Amino acid sequence: MAGGIGSRLWPLSTPDVPKQFIDVLGVGRSLIQLTVDRFAPVCAPDHFWVVTGEKYVNLVREQLPAIPADQILAEPEGRNTAPCIAYASWKIRKKDPEANIVVTPADALVLKTAEFAGAIGKALAFTEERDAIVTVGITPSRPETGYGYIHASEALPGQLVKVSEFREKPDLDTAIGYLEDGHYFWNAGIFVWNVNTIIRELSAYAPQIAGIMDQLEPSFFTSAETPELRRLFPTCDKISIDYAVMEKSPYIYVIAEDLGWSDLGSWGSIQTHLKADEDGNSAVGQDVRLFDCQNCIVHTSSEKTVVVEGLDGYIVAESKDRLLICRLSQEQHIKEYSA
Amino acid sequence: MAGGIGSRLWPLSTPDVPKQFIDVLGVGRSLIQLTVDRFAPVCAPDHFWVVTGEKYVNLVREQLPAIPADQILAEPEGRNTAPCIAYASWKIRKKDPEANIVVTPADALVLKTAEFAGAIGKALAFTEERDAIVTVGITPSRPETGYGYIHASEALPGQLVKVSEFREKPDLDTAIGYLEDGHYFWNAGIFVWNVNTIIRELSAYAPQIAGIMDQLEPSFFTSAETPELRRLFPTCDKISIDYAVMEKSPYIYVIAEDLGWSDLGSWGSIQTHLKADEDGNSAVGQDVRLFDCQNCIVHTSSEKTVVVEGLDGYIVAESKDRLLICRLSQEQHIKEYSA
Repeated sequence: MAGGIGSRLWPLSTPDVPKQFIDVLGVGRSLIQLTVDRFAPVCAPDHFWVVTGEKYVNLVREQLPAIPADQILAEPEGRNTAPCIAYASWKIRKKDPEANIVVTPADALVLKTAEFAGAIGKALAFTEERDAIVTVGITPSRPETGYGYIHASEALPGQLVKVSEFREKPDLDTAIGYLEDGHYFWNAGIFVWNVNTIIRELSAYAPQIAGIMDQLEPSFFTSAETPELRRLFPTCDKISIDYAVMEKSPYIYVIAEDLGWSDLGSWGSIQTHLKADEDGNSAVGQDVRLFDCQNCIVHTSSEKTVVVEGLDGYIVAESKDRLLICRLSQEQHIKEYSA
Repeated sequence: MAGGIGSRLWPLSTPDVPKQFIDVLGVGRSLIQLTVDRFAPVCAPDHFWVVTGEKYVNLVREQLPAIPADQILAEPEGRNTAPCIAYASWKIRKKDPEANIVVTPADALVLKTAEFAGAIGKALAFTEERDAIVTVGITPSRPETGYGYIHASEALPGQLVKVSEFREKPDLDTAIGYLEDGHYFWNAGIFVWNVNTIIRELSAYAPQIAGIMDQLEPSFFTSAETPELRRLFPTCDKISIDYAVMEKSPYIYVIAEDLGWSDLGSWGSIQTHLKADEDGNSAVGQDVRLFDCQNCIVHTSSEKTVVVEGLDGYIVAESKDRLLICRLSQEQHIKEYSA
């Protein structure tokens, strides 16, 4: 899933080139490229499918040339994750009626890639034999209020256990309680299932969307597909897969572990993954010069000479024709500042 | 004279496009265009001469299309103001052996343009009749330590009086003394003289430079001029007109007045000439958005959306592939930061 906008990371992430297509960490690979790299142990290049916005199809082709062109699916508009996953699932079934699928956001970071590949492998083995939905949980390292949580029936790291319930973003006290309890895991938005399982669940719990997919199916892989999709996809209910299926289906398991996962959804979360100098400054850019600065994150994506003097605890981010200077403590307002 | 670099105004002013070619104040005209505008009452467009670096000739042509191409003189390298003025003077004499000349930097600001034109008119009338050098003094408004001073024999605003002596940049106590004394004026680097006067003075006090100009003269306005100039100009003594002539000649007068003059040589001086909002912020740019900022100067010359949050007393300046964020109180270090 590579259709998001990443508005909290403005000006690095913009509607023209959102975060999944950007080398956020300055490592030479965009987040979607890092995501594909991470799945290499469990999936051949020609088995990847990308669902993205129409305007991003060329970016996907450029950044992921090994993925077959007809497996890059273009949403005419964003309708949240349920229609996105439905469209991919119906398409995949037409090519491979028994496909075992992992769904993942394209714009998150996983540091423990070996553990991650292990967990995904276990989940795939599980769904190959059972009619089940598996989610990936992340052992929380802090009482984070920005993520949804998965309440697991048992606390067995690296093992598949039943999900008791999904919980939305908690307040701080609740999040502290979750952390102490030990049965609550961050919901990374990663799902594993057989194509027939998810299609049956969508048909049961999101019949409006499933009906549109059934209507579209005859056009798949023909010249009629794009016009039909443009006509019908925007009429799909705009709903997340969590609301549509996860919170309703009884077949849900979780495999939870500390995977060094981050959604890289904010400047603060990016800062924690960048190397800092002895004054706590992190810099990505060709030529960033800091004088009397502490605890700053400086991110420049154009080729720039950047001189920053006398700042403590600031974001300085520059991208093409946009510039942000903002206290890290105020970053929740970036979306409104840049609107 | 349009050969300077303006290194204290980095990144607005750079060696590629120095400050005289930039719309520093966001008024739609570069400083050299404003300079030419200011002299319109006393000088026809085809009587302007510009001395600049070879790499800036095209910028001058673009910005000042009314100036004849052969009156845009290209220095092969900067050798300070004495060779610059000598070259222009020798060239002008060849076209107009009795020329009355005003020499001015291209990158300063004058707000009281009517008073300025009046003072220049008086000075030109004076040098038309007398073999004299006239300088323009600026009534100081503060004990500025960044300028040289002219010590006038009398304090008669708007009238021509003899210069007692030139003084270099003073320390603060001395500058305060000058301000109280009333006979000391800022040296704006503007000179008025007849072409024969300055050539005679240069021949007397800077014979090395004058000798080279005599050697160059036969080539003027021929195809031999550029190669000869490239060969000989770089051998001129690197010396200012102040050291070479002003401090030695006995024929020097000053006309001093409050002309609303500024050399716009620093971000602080630019800030004083920009409109400020109620929080003391000045902004030049297409789309500058300030949140919880005070006493800042924000200057963007590319088309940019700029968001600045939580700064007090800072310079934020962006130009093409360069960015500066620096406390105004530290601006004297910009030259080293950007080096």
